[in-house]
Amino acid sequence: MTPADSDQARNPDPSHGDRGDRVFRRDHPVRFADVDAAGIVYYPRLLDYCHQTFEEFFSAVGDQPYSDWVQRGRIGFPTVHLDVDFLQPVQYGRSLTMTASVLRVGKRSVTFRFTGELGGGETAFRADVIKACAGMDTGLSQDITAELRALFESHLATEEPPE
Amino acid sequence: MTPADSDQARNPDPSHGDRGDRVFRRDHPVRFADVDAAGIVYYPRLLDYCHQTFEEFFSAVGDQPYSDWVQRGRIGFPTVHLDVDFLQPVQYGRSLTMTASVLRVGKRSVTFRFTGELGGGETAFRADVIKACAGMDTGLSQDITAELRALFESHLATEEPPE
Amino acid sequence: MTPADSDQARNPDPSHGDRGDRVFRRDHPVRFADVDAAGIVYYPRLLDYCHQTFEEFFSAVGDQPYSDWVQRGRIGFPTVHLDVDFLQPVQYGRSLTMTASVLRVGKRSVTFRFTGELGGGETAFRADVIKACAGMDTGLSQDITAELRALFESHLATEEPPE
Amino acid sequence: MTPADSDQARNPDPSHGDRGDRVFRRDHPVRFADVDAAGIVYYPRLLDYCHQTFEEFFSAVGDQPYSDWVQRGRIGFPTVHLDVDFLQPVQYGRSLTMTASVLRVGKRSVTFRFTGELGGGETAFRADVIKACAGMDTGLSQDITAELRALFESHLATEEPPE
Repeated sequence: MTPADSDQARNPDPSHGDRGDRVFRRDHPVRFADVDAAGIVYYPRLLDYCHQTFEEFFSAVGDQPYSDWVQRGRIGFPTVHLDVDFLQPVQYGRSLTMTASVLRVGKRSVTFRFTGELGGGETAFRADVIKACAGMDTGLSQDITAELRALFESHLATEEPPE
Repeated sequence: MTPADSDQARNPDPSHGDRGDRVFRRDHPVRFADVDAAGIVYYPRLLDYCHQTFEEFFSAVGDQPYSDWVQRGRIGFPTVHLDVDFLQPVQYGRSLTMTASVLRVGKRSVTFRFTGELGGGETAFRADVIKACAGMDTGLSQDITAELRALFESHLATEEPPE
Repeated sequence: MTPADSDQARNPDPSHGDRGDRVFRRDHPVRFADVDAAGIVYYPRLLDYCHQTFEEFFSAVGDQPYSDWVQRGRIGFPTVHLDVDFLQPVQYGRSLTMTASVLRVGKRSVTFRFTGELGGGETAFRADVIKACAGMDTGLSQDITAELRALFESHLATEEPPE
Repeated sequence: MTPADSDQARNPDPSHGDRGDRVFRRDHPVRFADVDAAGIVYYPRLLDYCHQTFEEFFSAVGDQPYSDWVQRGRIGFPTVHLDVDFLQPVQYGRSLTMTASVLRVGKRSVTFRFTGELGGGETAFRADVIKACAGMDTGLSQDITAELRALFESHLATEEPPE
């Protein structure tokens, strides 16, 4: 196991074939420093949790860490749109499970859905994040390669979850 | 003064009566540590910029800092919804102006619109953020007080900007 | 395993009796957002890595997460002194192992040594961190309890490592 | 202007000739999100405050922002050593003034002293930070140029402050 994927949930088979469970899951520690003066996790940090989960997705589901895509493949995924519902505050010391699935794979973009679930299965937040595929050297959008498309489609939600 | 050294409101009269300019503006320094491995500001930090602008709004437009509302007034504004478009990447060293205006004041929530504008007036991102009004001790939503309502309405957009 | 300790290295026996190995180790992911505009991990974030390792120490070596000490035990460990050498830059995508050991347990303070080691055993940084024991409610320093003393002494370096 | 809205240099003549006052000062806002679960500013963020003050020093005392040195001059100042005393906790809502002075300018390194002062002149923390001068493209240490040496020496403490 490489360090890059050492932060993930212990998911023995993260892409098991069950169509109803094409969801990547990992436990995410809620850190001492993640809260704000109101005593709950500061919401930009919840989006950082989502990005960390995105990074882990590549290591755990794919066969190379995200850093390899960025540094060797010269491909990046800048975020172009966010739609987020915060349903419950997240406190320090709470158990939190992050999930990632894919709502849509376009020609040059991919839409991830991330959720944070508190113990008991309660959804604390749900973030739909549209990411463009871009060349790291050009800064321009480019087509998603077949390999990345297959990676994303392995966790494509079979139908749009109800709002 | 260069953009890099100005995190302050630069607005001598931030709520001047002009209906078309009910927008709070401040220069926001893009810090050395704000970028990510792709060399652009990490998007959760752009939302941190929005929250910092929200904090500054209270000091610059109102008559007490946000910390007083939180610590003495025991009122907070947890974020319940985000809708964000990232239109242009923001690089280290760029001049960035943050704006804040209010799209809607409800009974128990307020919707802010934040934008980040690069030199030349180009909009780098636009974030519509719905914040609930909540009691810091109860954790429950509560009515927006008359004083806060007046503060928010002083920067109410006269009409919903086109999408 | 609780979420609070899910970020640690898989150390099946972190406090095994070998006197020469009273060191807690965990792989630490170097995140996409941890670097700065010079392309190396921003040094305050390396200190955040140290604190995360401190948090994990409680879960992995002790029998309750740090959050329980803080929230139920009402005990905290504010940092009172730092002495840090940064020997090698840490880049995104590098393999990094964090270590923690204890240099000294005083009546009301404990000195941790954290190191970050790159693949190949090269030490990237070494941080000696003195932490006071303080009551969360009083804010005052207080004696380290017997249980915490035993926890810290389980990883006491048998002699001060050479400078 | 309240402390909360002022991240700028407040120093109309930051390098005035008075030998006893070769200190750069700026108010630094203590942000809502800067505290941790103990309710005080998380210590790695205090080091971030120091780096922000270092960045501001270039704009306010010198004649180009730090980003120009990094991006055009291809010069950086990686931190090689830290020695920090945390004397008082810093709470959200407190007024904080950061100071920077230079303890030593070597051939290839510079030692800054940063302090954080609470209202009333109480020193909350003091950080002595040794920074190497390095080429951004080579990653190797290099001599401090005459222009940078003059900049640093303009704020050289006339004698080492007592410990």
